[in-house]
Amino acid sequence: MTQYDTSNIFAKILRGEIPSHTVYEDEAVIAFMDVMPQADGHALVVPKSPSRNLLDADPATLPAVIAAVQTVAIASKKAFSADGITILQFNEAPAGQSVFHLHFHIIPRHEGHPMRAHSGTMEDGDILKANAEKLRAALG
Amino acid sequence: MTQYDTSNIFAKILRGEIPSHTVYEDEAVIAFMDVMPQADGHALVVPKSPSRNLLDADPATLPAVIAAVQTVAIASKKAFSADGITILQFNEAPAGQSVFHLHFHIIPRHEGHPMRAHSGTMEDGDILKANAEKLRAALG
Repeated sequence: MTQYDTSNIFAKILRGEIPSHTVYEDEAVIAFMDVMPQADGHALVVPKSPSRNLLDADPATLPAVIAAVQTVAIASKKAFSADGITILQFNEAPAGQSVFHLHFHIIPRHEGHPMRAHSGTMEDGDILKANAEKLRAALG
Repeated sequence: MTQYDTSNIFAKILRGEIPSHTVYEDEAVIAFMDVMPQADGHALVVPKSPSRNLLDADPATLPAVIAAVQTVAIASKKAFSADGITILQFNEAPAGQSVFHLHFHIIPRHEGHPMRAHSGTMEDGDILKANAEKLRAALG
């Protein structure tokens, strides 16, 4: 198992070194908008405790993470009037992982709209901000 | 929210009405091989308590589910000498859900091998059996 690298972008967000469109935070977890969304409203749930992915995560940290995943998923369906929610969690690059800090993708889906590929192109900041506001409102 | 339908195929597996290649079981969860695998070794983690998906699941049931997801993911990487593990969890048909009982897909991945599409074709029973044996062995 490769070691945890503290210079990954989510670690920087957790340390406040780079900004994010945060929508949810509790003692164990933050959630913020994915800047390269595969559908409008695509958010990420990220535990504060460091692990590379699910394979090396401290099991004691996971109940709070799955609770936040459920909370954000329910809010996402409401915020974006979604027909469903796709949850993705990738472990290591051949499985789709590109940032090496454990995270869950929460992707609102609409009938007839396939997910977009990871384009590598940043979403417009105003769109991210507007979607974050919708999701925060649904999270109460 | 549509109601939980007790005639779904995973409910039938949980009641022992149809067989499965079970690899793991505890008080809260079972895991068995997906009969239409998107990669060799594709397994499912399924809570015993009834819910349609993550959106209506009793939050109290989720810690045991994510613990089993982690356990099976770690074992799957070992059993299939995988380069990574893709975890998928779909909520409602437009998000990819086809069986309406909460489940997590645990998919071993290898560099250079894209996941197969859901073909609708059943995998050969001997292959499923052999992969179940590998995964059970890794689960100890």
